[in-house]
Amino acid sequence: MDQLHDTLAANLTRLAETAVRIGVNIQPEQELIVNAPVEAVGLVREIARQAYRAGARNVSVMFNDQALSRIHLEEGAESIFDYAPAWRYDGVIRAASEGAAILTVFGADPDLLAGCDAGRQARSQKAHAIAGRGLREIIGGFRTSWSIIPFAHPAWAKAVFPGRGEADAVALLWDAIFSTTRVRDGDPVANWDAHVKQLHARAAGLNGKRFDALHFSGPGTDLRVGLVEGHLWAGGAVETAAGRRCLPNIPTEEVFTMPHCQRVDGVVRSTKPLSYQGTLIEGIEVRFEGGRIVQADARNGAEVFRNLLAIDEGAARLGEVALVPDASPISRSGLLFQNTLFDENAACHIAIGRALGINAPGGEIEGLDGANDSLVHVDWMIGSGEIDVDGLYKDGRVEAVMRQGAFV
Amino acid sequence: MDQLHDTLAANLTRLAETAVRIGVNIQPEQELIVNAPVEAVGLVREIARQAYRAGARNVSVMFNDQALSRIHLEEGAESIFDYAPAWRYDGVIRAASEGAAILTVFGADPDLLAGCDAGRQARSQKAHAIAGRGLREIIGGFRTSWSIIPFAHPAWAKAVFPGRGEADAVALLWDAIFSTTRVRDGDPVANWDAHVKQLHARAAGLNGKRFDALHFSGPGTDLRVGLVEGHLWAGGAVETAAGRRCLPNIPTEEVFTMPHCQRVDGVVRSTKPLSYQGTLIEGIEVRFEGGRIVQADARNGAEVFRNLLAIDEGAARLGEVALVPDASPISRSGLLFQNTLFDENAACHIAIGRALGINAPGGEIEGLDGANDSLVHVDWMIGSGEIDVDGLYKDGRVEAVMRQGAFV
Repeated sequence: MDQLHDTLAANLTRLAETAVRIGVNIQPEQELIVNAPVEAVGLVREIARQAYRAGARNVSVMFNDQALSRIHLEEGAESIFDYAPAWRYDGVIRAASEGAAILTVFGADPDLLAGCDAGRQARSQKAHAIAGRGLREIIGGFRTSWSIIPFAHPAWAKAVFPGRGEADAVALLWDAIFSTTRVRDGDPVANWDAHVKQLHARAAGLNGKRFDALHFSGPGTDLRVGLVEGHLWAGGAVETAAGRRCLPNIPTEEVFTMPHCQRVDGVVRSTKPLSYQGTLIEGIEVRFEGGRIVQADARNGAEVFRNLLAIDEGAARLGEVALVPDASPISRSGLLFQNTLFDENAACHIAIGRALGINAPGGEIEGLDGANDSLVHVDWMIGSGEIDVDGLYKDGRVEAVMRQGAFV
Repeated sequence: MDQLHDTLAANLTRLAETAVRIGVNIQPEQELIVNAPVEAVGLVREIARQAYRAGARNVSVMFNDQALSRIHLEEGAESIFDYAPAWRYDGVIRAASEGAAILTVFGADPDLLAGCDAGRQARSQKAHAIAGRGLREIIGGFRTSWSIIPFAHPAWAKAVFPGRGEADAVALLWDAIFSTTRVRDGDPVANWDAHVKQLHARAAGLNGKRFDALHFSGPGTDLRVGLVEGHLWAGGAVETAAGRRCLPNIPTEEVFTMPHCQRVDGVVRSTKPLSYQGTLIEGIEVRFEGGRIVQADARNGAEVFRNLLAIDEGAARLGEVALVPDASPISRSGLLFQNTLFDENAACHIAIGRALGINAPGGEIEGLDGANDSLVHVDWMIGSGEIDVDGLYKDGRVEAVMRQGAFV
């Protein structure tokens, strides 16, 4: 047990170091804001230690507690759900505008809010989306360096390993995390350098194609996704507005680009559950017409899903389409993480909501034909070993991009 | 064990309810900001539940982690200690200005920062004091309702009960907390109503005296504390600027008023250790001349104490003097809490630093002759069963106020 404990501690240190040095790539005298669940306090301390060693001017931790969300929904008076504390977002916006990096430690019970009033959830999510809009613009425009890393929250571990006791489940989830975040084996910095090169090469190859659209086909899916003229494929590390490199998601396996928000047609079926802010949405089936979702159903969480689509006009249109080989390390782990940070890196996916500046030819989505705008941006998985993807050229030619989940 | 656990849960609920209903006296549609250590998450959830039931519009929790302070001091580059994240204070200042109540849950390792560099501590404390000045003005001026309640932090419990295992120590500390906060026995609301009436009566009695000065005498202490002309004694519940009643400290046993910052002379010896921001300062001995501390020593933590006195001109002068009977419930518990929230309610005390508006004839210290100003306000204990206090009238008459720690 002592040896296991030592290994865990060593890997936590490597994850913290990877997050600080590669994820947000903290610079001397730069401030760091860390968002984290209270349960992650041990990992947070290690992150702070690594950040100060890298010269950080200050590490401000914004701890959160999931259970408070449920208490809010269950105990709050009916009148309060359209309010969100803008002052909390504005403080972070100010710090990020002045150069603070933002590191989010994510791990949560995927189905925490099961059974909570969907109407209250929708109102509260919209209020937070409005209060947090400026922050999402900074994040989406890479106006500062940011990153998201995972944490083996006990409730999440139990959802991934339902047959196990809590301690076992947490140990197994940590092992899966350390492996898929490339910190367990070898030198994390070298691992990530090599992997990022591969993702950049893949994005460059797709940028060379100038596809007009992608076509996804498989069980329950026959979807044509038009791409914005001049769209850029991205993946792996990103250069911020200040010219610093950061790695926004750890792990990451995707390359992604910008769909045309009025040129998406057909049907698509989700291939993995989507945990959206504490509600597990499973078995999504939607129909697009002219870019808009005109019919939506889900086996589980349908009301929360439909409320999400109704937040604003752009929430029922696409802002991102991403390709991930079915043979990605996360997919090969055989685990269903019920956590988008992982599952979106195990399968091709689409995101409803706001498009990303990084996929726009000029780096800005404002005024770009076909670029979607919305308060939200939510990824969900549509890929698997049964899905084929074709690239469609403007002149009618068709080229195979993926067959049975693998790049051709 | 199950019954013990049930009792603990019931008492935590009573403490949370007392904090919400009597402490900050939350109003429908009022926002609540809670500051709390991460270890207190269970109590915080109960506070949130009670606050929402009382109609709170939102409960924003600002969790803190003590250990991060130590990591900051130990690992930070030498250049960073004059910085504090003003954006964090400014957010709370904005929310409080718009009416949010502030509830602080306090429990900490009294000697967490032992051995840390005192110079770095002093620089960091000053930076935070400057960034937090606006917040202290809101707090000190009761421009919103606020309260501080205790939490049996394991490290604190072990300091109070050094011979015990952690679980035992925590259980014993909780019991002492529930008893001294008047939530364990009987109806907390009725208990506090009766106690506040008593404190208000004591303050009213002292206000009727119009003493010109107080004289403290006992072992190592011979101190004359001049009082500001028109000073007001206060204690117990306070009315905020908006006319709402709140109870700023739970527990509270003191009545206190405003010393004249240029009319304090003599020597005084501390009777209990002072835990100041993670450093235990013991055996303080100081000499006042013309209101100013001109000589200061301490058996432990002398460097941190002298740095505190040097923060600014007002840090070496008094801003508060308080009377507490040696027979207070906290004193009778026989425990040395090493936590000012408790120890200041077991003994007469003085505070160096900023004077309090509540003790000023017009409610404002600006422009008031003898009212001290400073970035800090730090209480330390000078009372015991061996201390006598006399009230001195302007015409030379002397009246006994306390004998051997008891009100006459």
